[in-house]
Order: sequence, then structure tokens, then C-alpha cells
Amino acid sequence: MHILITGGAGLLGSKLARQLLERGSLELDGTRREIISLTLFDRAEPNSGESFLEDSRLKVVSGDLTNAETIRSLLKAAPDVIFHLAAVVSGEAEKNFELGMAVNIDATRTLLETCRASGTTPHFVFTSSVAVYGGELPDVIQDDTALNPQSSYGMQKAVGELLVNDYSRRGFIDGRVLRLPTVVVRPGQPNAATSSFASSIIREPLQGAQAVCPVSAETRMWIMSPRQAVESLIHAAQLRADDLGTNRSLALPGLSVSVGEMVSELAEVAGQEVAGRVRWETDPFIERIVGSWPAQFAPRRASKLGFKADKSLRDLIEIFIQDDMQGPLKVEA
Amino acid sequence: MHILITGGAGLLGSKLARQLLERGSLELDGTRREIISLTLFDRAEPNSGESFLEDSRLKVVSGDLTNAETIRSLLKAAPDVIFHLAAVVSGEAEKNFELGMAVNIDATRTLLETCRASGTTPHFVFTSSVAVYGGELPDVIQDDTALNPQSSYGMQKAVGELLVNDYSRRGFIDGRVLRLPTVVVRPGQPNAATSSFASSIIREPLQGAQAVCPVSAETRMWIMSPRQAVESLIHAAQLRADDLGTNRSLALPGLSVSVGEMVSELAEVAGQEVAGRVRWETDPFIERIVGSWPAQFAPRRASKLGFKADKSLRDLIEIFIQDDMQGPLKVEA
Repeated sequence: MHILITGGAGLLGSKLARQLLERGSLELDGTRREIISLTLFDRAEPNSGESFLEDSRLKVVSGDLTNAETIRSLLKAAPDVIFHLAAVVSGEAEKNFELGMAVNIDATRTLLETCRASGTTPHFVFTSSVAVYGGELPDVIQDDTALNPQSSYGMQKAVGELLVNDYSRRGFIDGRVLRLPTVVVRPGQPNAATSSFASSIIREPLQGAQAVCPVSAETRMWIMSPRQAVESLIHAAQLRADDLGTNRSLALPGLSVSVGEMVSELAEVAGQEVAGRVRWETDPFIERIVGSWPAQFAPRRASKLGFKADKSLRDLIEIFIQDDMQGPLKVEA
Repeated sequence: MHILITGGAGLLGSKLARQLLERGSLELDGTRREIISLTLFDRAEPNSGESFLEDSRLKVVSGDLTNAETIRSLLKAAPDVIFHLAAVVSGEAEKNFELGMAVNIDATRTLLETCRASGTTPHFVFTSSVAVYGGELPDVIQDDTALNPQSSYGMQKAVGELLVNDYSRRGFIDGRVLRLPTVVVRPGQPNAATSSFASSIIREPLQGAQAVCPVSAETRMWIMSPRQAVESLIHAAQLRADDLGTNRSLALPGLSVSVGEMVSELAEVAGQEVAGRVRWETDPFIERIVGSWPAQFAPRRASKLGFKADKSLRDLIEIFIQDDMQGPLKVEA
């Protein structure tokens, strides 16, 4: 079996690749199949320090997903499973409308069209987002709550969902769409996602640095650890199409927490001095977008299909410390 | 004020043009403005018999909406209101996937992009459809029921809705989306819409011809007369953007009727002999698609904004007889 991951140099892409190589196989349509090769595609090279990059099954390809020729060449290997994670993130898509359209809609469509032309019907796992919801929302999002994105990123993800659903219905691909909660704690540097601060306020203090929180402590978010997100992606790839029925899109279980609770839990885990490194400075641009995202779901379909949330906020912080902390937890003045 | 209608040679397009020319003005953003010119665009020429085609304010343009140059040239006049009605209809979009994508998504997007480039923010009325709904639906569609199209036409209309909403949110256009009920009774010839039979079973018998009904008598539909649909389009153009809030898409009021009730009412209006001209021959392809469309709505937002349904099924049949009947109602053996 061959696997392709777009956005493979990103946080989820590289963690997913490592997990897949460790497991060595996936069960597709009732048959367990060995992973023979895995292509990691991204515009950037993955972090060179990662040991899984030495794996002989791995192929790293860099390029531009808005180039149709690049996509055709990627699909020549006829991947059995495609994890399409590449995206222009929320803040960037809001600031650069054309870039967001080109990557989040056009490249997704070219990928789908190339699958269609190939006639191979790969399992196609597409990551959507809670940003597809917005406007006047119920307190708790249900599986049948209408999408109403209030950002261009959310609109583009919602369009991707519709495409993946129809291409699946027509048998061009076998799609699965996960509306991922905000992934927290992301290791590394802040990125252009509007939600980037939610990782920073835990990651930076733990590593001895200051962090700025641009939203109020009462702001609630629906979050998931990178470990759980990777688990969900692998689970999605292995679902049976019949179990998805007439709708390939799933809102995932997550944790509903306020930003204040995140900082309090950080204090529980690492002490008041660490948590004190968070500075509160509201940014209206970020607060408006994050405030439009829903923070509480009743994701019954996904739960029934076996998707899970992290056990607790404490767990989620400890997952970062175990999996991604660079250098030991330390207290600095 | 300049107005552009795409799909202007179609049923709604030409009825809308006639109505607009008769009224002579529209109230936009609180100001009544005279209609100086109206461009009817379509791939086909409108029916030459129509007297409004002689109106000096009218300009008829034929061309291909998938040609970006054509769109740019259409928008050079900087229309204040665009009614974007042009579409590849449901049955055709299901059978010819590429054509549906090219017209229903790509041409819509080019139109929106050209508006964006012009910087003029026209009122943009886009016709969507009940085909955006599907799958496991509640008995009554609510304003916040999620879209889940089960046809490529429905998917393409849902994508158009998302685009119109985001382009409006960003101020590139001032969009309004109407999810039109199935328009019944359409005059003229049957078309490639999956719902075409719903007009045929009233129109053909009234005009002395046989009609085939490809769905069972119990099949329910959500319908609206052409006259009421045109009324709704004009009302939509004149709404204030503020009244639409964070969602430009509206499911419209309509009549929920079974196909059997339609034929019974035809018998009431025109006699048993006329109604007897309907032959029942189920077509599984059509029945599957029509059966996936919802037939009962609670469109509270649209009702509050002043949109209305036809008064009764009898009215709807009589509107056809008054507005569109070719030749007198007659009984033939």
C-alpha cells in the first residue's frame, strides 16, 4: 500500500507519518495491508532532525500544490490513501484572499480531479475545521447544525467538504472529512493560524518564555492534542465507507475549555511562576475570529464511529511535555 | 441604475426582466432608483415573440458564461444589481459532471472575482435550490438545518452559496441567496431538470397532451409559481444587507404538495379528462434524486423578511393558465 500526505512537513503531517511508519500497516475495507511506501509532500522540507526521515519507505517531495503538474506527478504512484492536510491557515487566508482560494480550494479540487482521472478511488482523508461554523449558533453544535463560516478559511474548508462529499458519492474517491478541533499544544514556533496563541500560552511558558494571550480568559475553545488528532486521522482512513452513510463530514469529539482554564491548568502542572508568563493583551482581529468559532459540540456520529477526545486538559498539557517539549521543564526568573 | 440578468433567456430570467421593466425602478439601500438599462445575458437568444424585447432599455447579449472574457465584458457597465440565474440544471449536472462544475462553480466564481476586481459591490442575487439538502433530514427543514447535497447540482449550488456569503462578508459584493422551491408550472418544453415532470404533469394535460409522471403519487415537493419566484427575486434585490445578518442564504416559503395532490387539483380546475392525461411510469433515476429533496420547510427567516408562498395549489395552477397558457384550455379525446 502506498500513502500520500500533503502538508507532510507540518505538525500533524510529520507526526502522522511517524505513526504510520511505526504501525507498518492499515486495515482498509476489511483487509490489513502493509505500508510499502509513504510520500510526504510539502512546500517546505520537514525538520531534518526527525529520525523517521531515515526510514527507507519514506519519500520526501517538496513543491507547490497550486501547480497541477506537481499534483499529477504525485498521484502517478496511485496512492491507496491520501491524507490531504496542506492548507493556508486561518489568519493567512483572511489576510491573503487569493492565496487561500488557490491552495484551499483550487489545489484541493485539482487533487480530486486527478484522483477522478486516475480511476483508482483512493481513501481520501481531508481535514476541515471548526471554522466552518459561525454566525448565530446554538450553545452546543449538533451533527446537523448548518455550516455558516465567518472567515475565508472556514468558507474554503466548507467548500472542500462539499467537493469531497460529492466526489465520494460519485465514486471518484472514498472520502472522509474530519472537522478537527483546534490542535493544542503545537510544538515549535507560532504560525499564522488565528488559533496559534492557544498553543503559545502553554508552550512558551513551559519552555521559559513569555507568551501573549490575545483573547479574554472567558473565551472558550474546542481543542484536541496533536496525538489525538493523529489517532483520529488514522482511524478515519480505516473507517468503512458504508458506516459514513450519506455524509462524509464528521465533527470530532474534543475538550471544551476556556483560555483561563488552560492557564490555570498550566499552573497546576508546572506552577504559578510558569503560568505567570502569560501576558493578556486583547487583539480585536483575533478575538473576533476565534469568538466566531463554536466551543461545545455533541458529536454523536463521530463518537459512535469510535472517535475520541483527550481525557482531560491536564492530559493534553502532559502530552506536549512527553511528546514535544524541547529541553526540560524549568523555572526561570 | 443598470441591471444584469444571467440566464436571462430562461423562464425566470425573462419573466424577471419583463417585471423589472414594467416597474421601472427598484429601491436599493433606502433609495428608489430608476432602471436605465437592463442586460439579458444567456447562451441562447430569448424567445423572439416577447413584446418586452422591444423595450429601449433592454440589451440582449448571447455568449458563453464559462468564458472569462465574456464575463469581464458584461461587467464593464458596472451593474448595480446582478441576478445570477444561469445554471446547468440538476439532471444535466448529474449526467455531465464537468459541464456542471464549469458553469455552476467556475463561472459563478469568475463573476464574483470580476465584481471583486471592479470594486463596485453590486447587489448580487443568486438562485440556489432545495437540492442543497439531502441525506437524513428532519421532517421539516429549519433555517439552521445543515446542507447535505446528494446530487452534483446541489453540491455546486451549495458551493455557490458559500462563495456568495464570503464575498459579501468581505465587501466584494452585496449578496443574497434564495433557495428556490421547485418552480411549477414552467411554460414551454420540458427541460433537463430532474424536476421538469412536475410542470409537465400540469402543463401538458391542460394543453391537450399526454404527460408522464416518473415518481409515485405520494412523492412530496416544495413548490412555487414562476410569478411568486420573480416576486421573491425582486424582493431579495431590495432587502437591506443589515437585515440579513451573518447569513445571506434564505430558504423560501413554498407549498408542500404531493404529486398526487397536484394531479387531483388539476382535475378540480380542468376536469377528470384533463387529469387523466397523466401516465404514471416510475423512473428510478428521477425518483431517487427527487426523493432526496425536502418537501416541507419552516422558513422563519425568509417569512420575517417578507418573502411569501403562493396562496394555494389551485392558485398556482391558475397562475399558469393566466400567465403562460398557449392556446385556450380545451378538452380533447
